[in-house]
Amino acid sequence: MENTESVAKTHDTAASLIVVGSIALDTVSTPSASDRIGLGGSATYFSAAASLLCRPQIIAVLGEDFDRSQLNFLEERGVDLSSVTTKPGKTFHWQGSYGEDLGEATTLCTDLNVFADFEPSLNASQQDCDFLFLGNIIPQLQLEVVEQSRAKFAVADTMNLWINTKREDLLRVLGRIQMLVLNEAEAQLLSGEKGILAAARKIQSLGPGTVIIKRGAFGAFMLHEDELFSCPAYPTPNIVDPTGCGDTFAGGVLGTLARHGKVCGDTLREGIVVGTALASFTIEGYSLDGLKRADIHGLRQRYATLEQMTRFRALDM
Amino acid sequence: MENTESVAKTHDTAASLIVVGSIALDTVSTPSASDRIGLGGSATYFSAAASLLCRPQIIAVLGEDFDRSQLNFLEERGVDLSSVTTKPGKTFHWQGSYGEDLGEATTLCTDLNVFADFEPSLNASQQDCDFLFLGNIIPQLQLEVVEQSRAKFAVADTMNLWINTKREDLLRVLGRIQMLVLNEAEAQLLSGEKGILAAARKIQSLGPGTVIIKRGAFGAFMLHEDELFSCPAYPTPNIVDPTGCGDTFAGGVLGTLARHGKVCGDTLREGIVVGTALASFTIEGYSLDGLKRADIHGLRQRYATLEQMTRFRALDM
Repeated sequence: MENTESVAKTHDTAASLIVVGSIALDTVSTPSASDRIGLGGSATYFSAAASLLCRPQIIAVLGEDFDRSQLNFLEERGVDLSSVTTKPGKTFHWQGSYGEDLGEATTLCTDLNVFADFEPSLNASQQDCDFLFLGNIIPQLQLEVVEQSRAKFAVADTMNLWINTKREDLLRVLGRIQMLVLNEAEAQLLSGEKGILAAARKIQSLGPGTVIIKRGAFGAFMLHEDELFSCPAYPTPNIVDPTGCGDTFAGGVLGTLARHGKVCGDTLREGIVVGTALASFTIEGYSLDGLKRADIHGLRQRYATLEQMTRFRALDM
Repeated sequence: MENTESVAKTHDTAASLIVVGSIALDTVSTPSASDRIGLGGSATYFSAAASLLCRPQIIAVLGEDFDRSQLNFLEERGVDLSSVTTKPGKTFHWQGSYGEDLGEATTLCTDLNVFADFEPSLNASQQDCDFLFLGNIIPQLQLEVVEQSRAKFAVADTMNLWINTKREDLLRVLGRIQMLVLNEAEAQLLSGEKGILAAARKIQSLGPGTVIIKRGAFGAFMLHEDELFSCPAYPTPNIVDPTGCGDTFAGGVLGTLARHGKVCGDTLREGIVVGTALASFTIEGYSLDGLKRADIHGLRQRYATLEQMTRFRALDM
């Protein structure tokens, strides 16, 4: 990881990025479609997004029922799948449902299956990766991974279930990572604070110097050291299925950081806007359908739209 | 109203701005205080905010119970009160209550009193004012005022009550104004659209070329012709009472437009950021207490914070 901005501009020179998370089969219901079955999982969305920016590597486990050809598109995008193993049993399965507002999903069913015994072991090169993303998995497992790692910048996601039931383990994770990414309701639950700035500051005091709070249709908010940043959501009129938007967003952020090989206010801001633009592709389709349509050209266009939407001149008085 | 940006930089050369709205006595309950009685009203907050930017004039009516010395601070700030009349009866009174989240108020009581028979009549100079703001009053009254006016840029606020009960009158108002300012739930109710962009476009199709949607803690969104703008809320940690924030915001927007004497994407954006900064003073105190503490220096500081919070560099790929 270099300390200048001029490095790591192509995929081959980007810093290394590993995601430990799920590759899943999802069953999703929205107001316009019931029980759609498709590819899902935090590592899937994350790496598909990050692959536009660097060459991410996935550490995950599949069941014997999983048709690996479903991951061909990731391989074509340069994602390293060499540490995606197959074990006897069924693949992780999540079932969720969205209400009329297509806001937060209600989880109807979580079958951990082969994920229940998942014990990721990092090899020497993986231990030395530059950037590490711990998808939303049980905090004990996040802790085992981060303790094996010498990553220069480790990032975790989490959820209300772990905040409520595994708080002590989660607090240990927070003491070991540099950045936490979570949604606003989770930030309020974890911190006990209602205001977004107070919540972010409280979480910062628990460990991570950088806190990114996802606000759905209201965009994203970052506290990095003493620096604040706010980015609106991309105003897509075509909202189909929000599943995977958070992981897509995180993949855009971490992919940008790995691409530049540098963590600072500027690269984090760029990453948040990239993540926002990429998440807007994910929401436009079921499963990975929307995100698969995202390319560098589309990313550049949506990034430029977000620039136009947020710029204003200096106060003229 | 000039068509260049270099005019109207001082209060004396600003374009003329009239607000027609209420001066009220409010009774407000928040989680930390019950039944606090204080000065309120849309015209009061609006003009106090705009007075930092131009010399607004109020058209309003008071009851005999109103102690006019409560308005001295407005006169000291250069607000023209010559068309604030006193009539037999009681002053307009609003009673509202906020829940734990200090979000939308629940209206407990609205006593129109002297406001019930308010029939504002604009004199020749008022008819020719450059900018006109119609505070949140019954649409029939907004229509009577706008029909007397030859304002170059007329703006209205509204609320769910009128959208539900006076839709036809409100639609007539929309056909006569250049800009509508309303909150997100009201925009959804008026348009029948859930997405903010779809809602704004639908409202635009009803008349006003510019639509500003207030999102509370999530900031503000503008559609101006084909141009989008999004501004986050100012992250004040000190939230006391949101009453008047919407009118303060509108006063900042219209005051900025009047100061520049020009309506375009740039002045609207500047106005929205000014309005956002000023509303953050209002929320920090009861009644006008917070806004009274706002001066040019404080406005500049908070504007600069909002610049810092939103800037990001061009995509480097």
